[in-house]
Amino acid sequence: GLAHKDFGARGILPGFIDCHTHMIFAGNRSNEFVLRQQGYSYADIQAQGGGIYSTVRATRAASFQTLYDLGRQRITQALRQGVTTFEIKSGYGLNLEAEQKMLEVAKQLSSDLKLTIHKTFLGAHVKAPEFQDNKRYLNYLSKEVFPVLIKKGLVDSVDGFCEGIAFSADELEPFFQICSEHVPIRIHADQLSQTGSVDLACQFKALSIDHAEYTSATELSQLKENDTVVVLLPGAFYHLRETQCPPIKALRELQIPFAVASDYNPGSSPILNFPFIMNLACNQFNLTVDEVFVGVTANAATVLGLVNKGKLLPSFDADFTVWDVEHPADLVAQIKPWQCHEVVVKGKVYDVHSI
Amino acid sequence: GLAHKDFGARGILPGFIDCHTHMIFAGNRSNEFVLRQQGYSYADIQAQGGGIYSTVRATRAASFQTLYDLGRQRITQALRQGVTTFEIKSGYGLNLEAEQKMLEVAKQLSSDLKLTIHKTFLGAHVKAPEFQDNKRYLNYLSKEVFPVLIKKGLVDSVDGFCEGIAFSADELEPFFQICSEHVPIRIHADQLSQTGSVDLACQFKALSIDHAEYTSATELSQLKENDTVVVLLPGAFYHLRETQCPPIKALRELQIPFAVASDYNPGSSPILNFPFIMNLACNQFNLTVDEVFVGVTANAATVLGLVNKGKLLPSFDADFTVWDVEHPADLVAQIKPWQCHEVVVKGKVYDVHSI
Repeated sequence: GLAHKDFGARGILPGFIDCHTHMIFAGNRSNEFVLRQQGYSYADIQAQGGGIYSTVRATRAASFQTLYDLGRQRITQALRQGVTTFEIKSGYGLNLEAEQKMLEVAKQLSSDLKLTIHKTFLGAHVKAPEFQDNKRYLNYLSKEVFPVLIKKGLVDSVDGFCEGIAFSADELEPFFQICSEHVPIRIHADQLSQTGSVDLACQFKALSIDHAEYTSATELSQLKENDTVVVLLPGAFYHLRETQCPPIKALRELQIPFAVASDYNPGSSPILNFPFIMNLACNQFNLTVDEVFVGVTANAATVLGLVNKGKLLPSFDADFTVWDVEHPADLVAQIKPWQCHEVVVKGKVYDVHSI
Repeated sequence: GLAHKDFGARGILPGFIDCHTHMIFAGNRSNEFVLRQQGYSYADIQAQGGGIYSTVRATRAASFQTLYDLGRQRITQALRQGVTTFEIKSGYGLNLEAEQKMLEVAKQLSSDLKLTIHKTFLGAHVKAPEFQDNKRYLNYLSKEVFPVLIKKGLVDSVDGFCEGIAFSADELEPFFQICSEHVPIRIHADQLSQTGSVDLACQFKALSIDHAEYTSATELSQLKENDTVVVLLPGAFYHLRETQCPPIKALRELQIPFAVASDYNPGSSPILNFPFIMNLACNQFNLTVDEVFVGVTANAATVLGLVNKGKLLPSFDADFTVWDVEHPADLVAQIKPWQCHEVVVKGKVYDVHSI
């Protein structure tokens, strides 16, 4: 048994918890990267049928099996990079059938791979193309989508994209009102502009606000009372070449917990490399290495409400990974195709090479 | 034979040429990364015995076999990432014995792995700690180190670090005068400040100037007459969080060829991930994807004077890699642990998993 296993002269780290991902999707958007480097803007690309709607089309068209296979490959990669617990959002379906398909894939992966996968309903990612306006679309989600998904046990939390290009705080409020009677709320907040998301987060005692680049220090102080965690997403910041940094200094001063996650998705954070996400958190947001390690373990567990994960302590799940490193900081400081030597989930050695 | 091999429905790319690396070294500097993120400066770290001299101590102390094993592991990783031709610099020895050891390791690796490895003598990386001043050290290199190394066939080109923290153009001039009678010159130029390196490059018709962040458009126009290639190194730019971008617009307008390389080293570019270097070239320097592909193939071959490499054309070496990608741009646009399906060097399938 594990109690007698010798891992040799290697480093052991708590399993990383990736608390913000969009890991289930179909389609390929590399050509958009080519166009952007040629000088085309997001608006140009969106007008040519690209952007998020391109992923929505591909994900709607993909079978359950295709999405399952893609998701399984991605989780396998992430496991080898030390991630043992996942959050996965829907949000590329934007109708009942396709949102349900995405969440069912996440549920099946969790069951087959014997991993904790927190399922987040992100129907409020962006308005579905079939709808004339945001209000009608959110009304549809509230009445015809969310009730079905919650009944089927497919929703652990609800997330909404509060942004000029998505939904306003006022639009999201009645939707969150309905959802929050069943599950906790999270918010994609202040990524590209100041949106009033923090008031919304306080109203619903949100688990997290995610991105938070434009959140002000004054707003942050309100969060403290609600135990809301700020989830930093340096992958999208890097990929979109953003310049407005989240308020790290204020987070430290106010002692508000912050997590770090991959935001893995095909558009704004096509980065399936978790140690590199940790490097980005240092390079782009100037976190210390210790802050990053806490951000991808203990604080990420708090976001997902997992009280038995994120620390290697008695009574916690024995989720850990074993590495051929001289120093744990090697993983963060050196960018290379890191693969852990061994993965242990809930006390059992996990054979990442046979899944 | 290869003429009949079926690579399936996959993408084929010319083997990448990494024309600027410091791939042979010992020691670990992750702790310096930890300190920097805590707010310590390079100067603080250097004063505590860190920085380049830490790598020099470790490399001098390492046996030939240790350096060989480390170098071989790194080359194996790079091969799997599509790099089939390498340049490797000395420069962590700073005395005859250790510089010779580094270059002999590079030579042995080239012979054992049957790969083209261009050996660059970079004794003029920084003054050896045993010397009082730059002039005496360069005089030692000219009289007691370079002649021995060249006689042993260990030097394909000579490089020097022209920078405030290393050597001035005036100091390097007599050293390059001696070296250039035997082999071509390259220059680490204008990385952190404007140094007058371009005049030096013109004087010696240098193969390349490398970094070039502070090189002006006016200076660049002089290079054109000498067929000097500008080698862009986005890894160090990223890792050191530099803000002064190389003059990309002027390079395009003047039609001066530019290459892209990893600069892999333990201090300023600890990045052993070649597709990610290509992503950085887009993200940090705003190159187009096409410019990056030319920069890591045809233009990199020019830097190393390899007239039969860098293109998949009749009479060229059949160096190519086979990838499970939908689009070649996937490699650049998506950051993940890319591994190629197959490596072919000089027309022979190269078993990267058995080396």
